Amino acid sequence: MSLIVQKFGGTSVGSVERIKAVADIVIETRKQGHQVVAVLSAMAGETDRLVELAGQAAKEPDSRQLDVLLATGEQVTIALLSMVLQEKKYQAVSYTGGQVHILTDNVHNKARIVDIEAMRVKKDLAARKVVVIAGFQGIDEQGNITTLGRGGTDTTAVAMAVALNADECRIYTDVDGVFTADPRIVSEAKRMDRISYEEMLEMASSGSKVLQTRAVEFANKYKVPLRVLSSFKEGPGTLITEEDESMEQALISGIAHNRDEAKLTLISVPDKPGIAAAILSPIANADINVDMIVQNVGVDNTTDFTFTVHRNDFNKALALLKKTARDLGAKEVTGDDRIVKISVVGVGMRSHAGIATKMFVALADEGINIQMISTSEIKISVVIAEKYLELGVRTLHSTFGLEGENDVVDDAAG
Amino acid sequence: MSLIVQKFGGTSVGSVERIKAVADIVIETRKQGHQVVAVLSAMAGETDRLVELAGQAAKEPDSRQLDVLLATGEQVTIALLSMVLQEKKYQAVSYTGGQVHILTDNVHNKARIVDIEAMRVKKDLAARKVVVIAGFQGIDEQGNITTLGRGGTDTTAVAMAVALNADECRIYTDVDGVFTADPRIVSEAKRMDRISYEEMLEMASSGSKVLQTRAVEFANKYKVPLRVLSSFKEGPGTLITEEDESMEQALISGIAHNRDEAKLTLISVPDKPGIAAAILSPIANADINVDMIVQNVGVDNTTDFTFTVHRNDFNKALALLKKTARDLGAKEVTGDDRIVKISVVGVGMRSHAGIATKMFVALADEGINIQMISTSEIKISVVIAEKYLELGVRTLHSTFGLEGENDVVDDAAG
Repeated sequence: MSLIVQKFGGTSVGSVERIKAVADIVIETRKQGHQVVAVLSAMAGETDRLVELAGQAAKEPDSRQLDVLLATGEQVTIALLSMVLQEKKYQAVSYTGGQVHILTDNVHNKARIVDIEAMRVKKDLAARKVVVIAGFQGIDEQGNITTLGRGGTDTTAVAMAVALNADECRIYTDVDGVFTADPRIVSEAKRMDRISYEEMLEMASSGSKVLQTRAVEFANKYKVPLRVLSSFKEGPGTLITEEDESMEQALISGIAHNRDEAKLTLISVPDKPGIAAAILSPIANADINVDMIVQNVGVDNTTDFTFTVHRNDFNKALALLKKTARDLGAKEVTGDDRIVKISVVGVGMRSHAGIATKMFVALADEGINIQMISTSEIKISVVIAEKYLELGVRTLHSTFGLEGENDVVDDAAG
Repeated sequence: MSLIVQKFGGTSVGSVERIKAVADIVIETRKQGHQVVAVLSAMAGETDRLVELAGQAAKEPDSRQLDVLLATGEQVTIALLSMVLQEKKYQAVSYTGGQVHILTDNVHNKARIVDIEAMRVKKDLAARKVVVIAGFQGIDEQGNITTLGRGGTDTTAVAMAVALNADECRIYTDVDGVFTADPRIVSEAKRMDRISYEEMLEMASSGSKVLQTRAVEFANKYKVPLRVLSSFKEGPGTLITEEDESMEQALISGIAHNRDEAKLTLISVPDKPGIAAAILSPIANADINVDMIVQNVGVDNTTDFTFTVHRNDFNKALALLKKTARDLGAKEVTGDDRIVKISVVGVGMRSHAGIATKMFVALADEGINIQMISTSEIKISVVIAEKYLELGVRTLHSTFGLEGENDVVDDAAG
């Protein structure tokens, strides 16, 4: 008997019909002899509806009140799933974040989980109940309702798995697992059976939207096995776990891409200590996240400084940068929001030289110009013109032999 | 400075626009120098929507889960009202039933309030905050979410007023107050400035739907002044309070009617001890409430036994009664769901003889046959054919001079 935490996102619980399908998955897992904790999101579209109501109520809705409002979304789905389970003669008990004491800090709208009181859940599981928990929400020490921000339900699921010392945390989504590349771009893309936390983190930060970075980091920290799988069709999904020898054999695990970024460059800025901070501080103060940063070696005491931000922040960042350029005496500011980032990810590259060269040559052979390069221990990212996205991803997918190496093993989920 | 609890029902918070109007009422009360606790229902229609979702999820939704689901309705409105208040620069804090520890028993869907921890609210009020509380809901000792059933928000408001020792509990509705008769039937009906708890209880149980009986009983028990008024238009409403001398002067306060009842009769049932219990036990066991009961004096060792139930329960009660008739050897069962109950209510009748006679004569003069009579210390009810409803109410309203005696005093709310 294992203890399995199962997380179902908004599309998986988007209607009562879908919730009944989720109940079938839960029951199937129970029939296999496992204990089940289900963690749910709000119905797809519900959070948007509530945010719109808040927008009608106030121009800038108070963040504490917004959490009170948004937390109703998951409360609806946990009640409905529990009703369905009870009707099917499975004892179920639902808990809001507050009821099961998911203690967070008091940063409304993007709170962090501090502690979970698991006793009550353990007792319910011992009494053969399915425990159904509202994701995305918690309470602070004063008992105020908090929410965890984007992807918060994944985080709740992983945190619950950690608190309960669960054997596996299964994240049900609308895709079959993690693929070697986006199947909509590369028809030969294969579902991976396994991937390491580190690789998943790099895939996620490179635009593979299957899982939120925060949940993967959390799982990695506590070494909770994560499995990504589909709530719409059966299959073993992809297990995200610690590196092992079998993984080492794969040089490159996958090709990720991100078309949500835009590039900004400050040309010929006087090259002196503190210049990077002077450029990026106004950006950070405006709550704009910076992804890649490249500073070229200076010529004539000036340097070019390039970085990427989310496309939604492009215009705001450009305006800020123009002001900074004047302050610092830079020659020019340029920007481009028609770029993409493509990354090759794999723990194997640690022990193999020449991956970067192989990547750059493959792209050059297709006439694709590389605008920026950034590397980590297990990832190489390049920024190229958006029009080359599909060609670039397909080229790299075949260059690193991903269509052949990863055979799908369909009984991996056991 | 007074402490005022203000309750707003579903139509009063039926849209964000309506919630903004509620905020204006709250702010106006604050500007008069009072502390305000607002107790809210769910948006009109929201509870029905949730009940329908539950009906899709399960044929007989689990009662605990239903409470988890339904409790989201008020959580939405308290968040929205607080947002509006904050935007208008009034500090506001919202609480669910659980957060403010409205402790109830564990009878889901119709829980009773056991205790309220008022400390947190008192602190907020002292800090000049408007406290916005979700009506209709609480938690049991195990922290399970409970709901109070029909009219629960009125009960929450009164209980909160008791716990806080409030100066007045104002129930905002879509009518201007309590009237001497239904204004849709009697155009001369007057809004009453004051009415005693006892009279209000009799009015409510006789079909005047302005307030739930339970909330009035609660207010009476703890002597909290209740005021019924409109959230749609300004006015002093009707104050429900203890009897005083000024009330004694009014012989009859109002004419109430109830068209939700049906009448059942067991004819020629052998008259022996325990007969009433034998007849009514199966009805009670089927959770059917009985209102009026009349048993005629027996002739030839048999008696006729008549009682009224809610029209929705008529067919069920009739079927049960037919079985009972066979068991007891009664001659016949008859039923009529085309009846109404009309009541004259007033504390003044305690000290005045002849009210009943005056009532019966007035009805007889109009050719209205009385089918059943039931009396209490401050009420006389008769059952008549439904077709005489309007004629009966208007006749009694003028017979007891109600159109003239109660002058509307518009500054009574102060």
